[in-house]
Amino acid sequence: MKKHVASFDLASKPVEVPTGTTLIKAARSAGVEIQQPCGGQGRCGRCVVQIEKGTVRRRSSLRLSTQDVEKGYALACQSIIEGDVSVGVPPQEKVERRLVTDLTAKKVSIPEGYNYLKHQNIRRVTLTITPPSMDDQTDDWSRLQRALRQEGGIDNIQTSLPMLQQIGALLRESDWKITAIVDTSLADPLQPSRLIALLPDHVSEESPLWGCAIDIGTTTVTLWLVDLFSGEVRAQVAEYNKQINHGEDVISRIIFSSNKNNAGILRQLVVETINLLLEKACKRVNARREEIVKTTVSGNSTMLHLLLDIPTINIRLSPFITTVNHLPPLTAREVGFNIHPDGTVDILPNVASYVGADITAGVFSSGIAKTDLKTLFMDVGTNGEIVLGTKDWLVACACSAGPAFEGAGVVNGMRATKGAIEEVWINSETYEPTIRVIGGGKPRGLCGSGLISLLAELFLVGVVDKSGNINTTRDTPRVRLGEHEAEYVITWADETAHQRDIVITHVDIDNLLRAKAAIFAGFIVLAKGVGVPLDTIEQVLIGGAFGQYINVEKAIEIGMLPDMPWENFHFLGNTSVLGAYYALLNWESRKQIDEIAKQMTYIELSADNTFYEAFTSALFLPHTDLTLFPSVSKAMAG
Amino acid sequence: MKKHVASFDLASKPVEVPTGTTLIKAARSAGVEIQQPCGGQGRCGRCVVQIEKGTVRRRSSLRLSTQDVEKGYALACQSIIEGDVSVGVPPQEKVERRLVTDLTAKKVSIPEGYNYLKHQNIRRVTLTITPPSMDDQTDDWSRLQRALRQEGGIDNIQTSLPMLQQIGALLRESDWKITAIVDTSLADPLQPSRLIALLPDHVSEESPLWGCAIDIGTTTVTLWLVDLFSGEVRAQVAEYNKQINHGEDVISRIIFSSNKNNAGILRQLVVETINLLLEKACKRVNARREEIVKTTVSGNSTMLHLLLDIPTINIRLSPFITTVNHLPPLTAREVGFNIHPDGTVDILPNVASYVGADITAGVFSSGIAKTDLKTLFMDVGTNGEIVLGTKDWLVACACSAGPAFEGAGVVNGMRATKGAIEEVWINSETYEPTIRVIGGGKPRGLCGSGLISLLAELFLVGVVDKSGNINTTRDTPRVRLGEHEAEYVITWADETAHQRDIVITHVDIDNLLRAKAAIFAGFIVLAKGVGVPLDTIEQVLIGGAFGQYINVEKAIEIGMLPDMPWENFHFLGNTSVLGAYYALLNWESRKQIDEIAKQMTYIELSADNTFYEAFTSALFLPHTDLTLFPSVSKAMAG
Repeated sequence: MKKHVASFDLASKPVEVPTGTTLIKAARSAGVEIQQPCGGQGRCGRCVVQIEKGTVRRRSSLRLSTQDVEKGYALACQSIIEGDVSVGVPPQEKVERRLVTDLTAKKVSIPEGYNYLKHQNIRRVTLTITPPSMDDQTDDWSRLQRALRQEGGIDNIQTSLPMLQQIGALLRESDWKITAIVDTSLADPLQPSRLIALLPDHVSEESPLWGCAIDIGTTTVTLWLVDLFSGEVRAQVAEYNKQINHGEDVISRIIFSSNKNNAGILRQLVVETINLLLEKACKRVNARREEIVKTTVSGNSTMLHLLLDIPTINIRLSPFITTVNHLPPLTAREVGFNIHPDGTVDILPNVASYVGADITAGVFSSGIAKTDLKTLFMDVGTNGEIVLGTKDWLVACACSAGPAFEGAGVVNGMRATKGAIEEVWINSETYEPTIRVIGGGKPRGLCGSGLISLLAELFLVGVVDKSGNINTTRDTPRVRLGEHEAEYVITWADETAHQRDIVITHVDIDNLLRAKAAIFAGFIVLAKGVGVPLDTIEQVLIGGAFGQYINVEKAIEIGMLPDMPWENFHFLGNTSVLGAYYALLNWESRKQIDEIAKQMTYIELSADNTFYEAFTSALFLPHTDLTLFPSVSKAMAG
Repeated sequence: MKKHVASFDLASKPVEVPTGTTLIKAARSAGVEIQQPCGGQGRCGRCVVQIEKGTVRRRSSLRLSTQDVEKGYALACQSIIEGDVSVGVPPQEKVERRLVTDLTAKKVSIPEGYNYLKHQNIRRVTLTITPPSMDDQTDDWSRLQRALRQEGGIDNIQTSLPMLQQIGALLRESDWKITAIVDTSLADPLQPSRLIALLPDHVSEESPLWGCAIDIGTTTVTLWLVDLFSGEVRAQVAEYNKQINHGEDVISRIIFSSNKNNAGILRQLVVETINLLLEKACKRVNARREEIVKTTVSGNSTMLHLLLDIPTINIRLSPFITTVNHLPPLTAREVGFNIHPDGTVDILPNVASYVGADITAGVFSSGIAKTDLKTLFMDVGTNGEIVLGTKDWLVACACSAGPAFEGAGVVNGMRATKGAIEEVWINSETYEPTIRVIGGGKPRGLCGSGLISLLAELFLVGVVDKSGNINTTRDTPRVRLGEHEAEYVITWADETAHQRDIVITHVDIDNLLRAKAAIFAGFIVLAKGVGVPLDTIEQVLIGGAFGQYINVEKAIEIGMLPDMPWENFHFLGNTSVLGAYYALLNWESRKQIDEIAKQMTYIELSADNTFYEAFTSALFLPHTDLTLFPSVSKAMAG
């Protein structure tokens, strides 16, 4: 096959690649990693590069203007090398720390009445074992089991081969005075108890015993380091999921990982992320990684499959099936976490492909399963999941809202990091906007809350009509015709960080309408499904990273949230990691989470006849049926 | 540190090693592997090499004559390099095939009434699973569990992470018509059932399902490939245990493996041996390795510890403790066997450091635990273990007989391979011997049965007295004074394969006396311990590789076996692999083997006061107490 030379300005030397290689692949082999939020499908435009010499064959130039193409810009994932090329790689968006900082600031309360001896699955017992003698030649393992039974009351205990390889030396080096750490597996009577660690001598009561609650979000991975004795959360750390470069939403990740060449990459990246967090958390409280003996892991179904390298392809393909919802307890050795290698990795149960352990955990930690109030719970992160219920019943659905609220699918969309416009007010006479920017500097784009805010304002001041069309007759230079379509300029180039206008286009608004309509239609279908009118719902609990920043008023105005008094809305933050934390501390809580997963009725919206109708009706601002939004009608009239 | 050049005639190029390196280590780094039957302790003399240029410091020259040392011979394991040297490596004894061939020749009967459906732990079930749909989005693993429960009656089933990584694809590729292979763990109700394999489509009833029974002997590893449906043994293969180069007896292996530099080496070697046997067995019947779904493994405690890389050091040190006697079921992936990676590896239980699973299995397969007859069972392989009992009681002990009967510790001793003298008759007037040689050619040494035969003859014709002294006044050139001591020449140099006299020395005889005395003292102590006079024993069952070749008459004459009618002795061959075979086929048998291990009372001879007395009394030919050997007294008188 013919070969060509590809040079990248960021690479130390050119690479030789065969005809037909994509630019992204050539870049990777040259050591240049280019972000692909959409997983390499040409949808997001984030992998744009500039061809400085030579030409490429463009399979698609979606997201590039004619001008861009003329200037030599090309999508790296969609461009094929057919001759020698020189390529310039523009600076990639840097991942910044706003979410991370915010998430780690919150103080977590220890569950009331937490009692290590009563609730904790992990037991630490000190043993003084009678050494072997000619009169009692019992083997080491049976002798240890006997001591655990007699002194610790722990029966039917198993262990791993690597532990068996060590116990002879451990018992003798410590002169038969040892401390054993055991997972008593109380939450599941079918599981035997399991010896995790043997420590020399009797450790002091003060010496720590750590656990971790982990939430693997599509965007952010959160880890809490917990003192298992007191129950206190001693460190909270978070990092962007390192998988992000290979897709910003679960679908993009699934597509990426379903390519045979990419097997195992996403697993490795998320394990790296978690090990980095473990290191940070340990450093903060001066803990040793081997002292961490248990982790409880939450996350959506795709993230949990990817963590274990279980193929995700059938999550994406109809009829949307996970490989496994209830995983047996695993060890850190199997999963790859840098804690005690025999430490337990307990993965919380999924309900369905798009209702994962994050929702099961969220339902538990938000208290729906214990309340009499008719409660709507929503987790709007990269995906949108909705649960409706009380302590007696639970129904759930997932809205394929897409990641519009995380900034993808929107020309100037971005994640909620430094430089993102998070709030917009528009003067109803001049149509001039006032903006608030995360971090306070010059803006670079719009994050989810900024988009909701902007859309609500544009609608209320009449720049956008109820169908989402931009009214180009408004007397302001901010409303103009872009290359293909109408757009509204929020910030002029000279006031932005990148010297380009920040705009919202008709297509962007269409994408936002689809996203909010999917969520609202989800509410409608769930409520109808169980015969509970939407207006009888007594509280709305909002979890998830994005949820925290929603302006409820604006979200109601665009018809994304149901129209009810603001005091009925409660923002709970990361309910997934909180649920994992409760499960980590208390085996009864862990059992209840299993029961929630079993009890929850999942409604597949794409199979539901009423969904399409509800969705279409919600594709307007705020909705075709204005009686559903009395407060908005009033504001429109005013 | 100073470095020296060491050249070995068998190596392609010299190596540079630091001062103080042993010749054996230098040889290894030059790619020359020298056999060390004693594990590198300078006891066996098998690692002798010739220094051709330069000198070495000899830590020990045991087993070398002054003449040998003058000629430059040195023990590679005991010689230190302190300057440049050139070394000649004499041809090492080639391992040959007599044992192997003999062991594989025997036809094994299928246990009466064997019924796959009733007795076999492994189940193969064909499933036709309703595919997922929008109406039933149950996850793959739950769906499979449901089908196994409903169609196969198998509940509480678990599986491995690698299997979970495959099931989604396996189920779909086979269009939901599959065959599952499950280990139902019937022998241990505390173990869950375990999914081993999923095969696409419904396999035909004729398609095979294989298991293996394996006996890991110190010298020989035996493997039987078994059709689990019919119970038939389809291939019997055996190989010398590749660990042999690092020690011929368990003590030498323990010493070798206790050296930190040697960690993992012996595990690797025995796993290699077994994988080689698997390959041979599969080739013979055209089986595929992935079709083997279960192995049942027997062997002595040291071999089973080494197989799993569990340290053996405490087996050797008083009070002689194993790390683990009852292992949980493992998978081939964990152990390293080249069968189906999720195939079960079931390791039979040990009783004590020197009464291993080979004896537990032997007691089961020889039927002692089901007989009313007072039975003496002995397994004389590289070690000597003795069990006395009936179906109601069992006592066991281990005799530290040493490997004298396998040819070690005897100047012209060798294993029972081609060229070994296996039978000797001596003319009582001329003292001229007649010999029988394995393979029929010129002799190279004496194997165990040859040594017993020779000693009995020398005693009966009066060349050796009851204390084991050689009577140098006999009128024959065959009795002479060697370098240090009296010896008897069995074969003159010109009639041997190696052109050196084959002799037995006073020290050799002393070693043989100690070995046979240890065994006989074991009988005495066991019998006394349970108050059963030796002459009331109704049958003697002899297992083990060596056992098959013992001439009972001669063994009684030297006082190794109790004096009773020959028809009371039965040779059973490899009772260990036979026991593993029964356990492989029938979960009830497997349970009984566990019960035998629990029931057997182990008597530690080194802690028994009566042992030393019994041993000293047995250090004579045939014994100090001639009333114990009436038939021998008669022969001596005649």
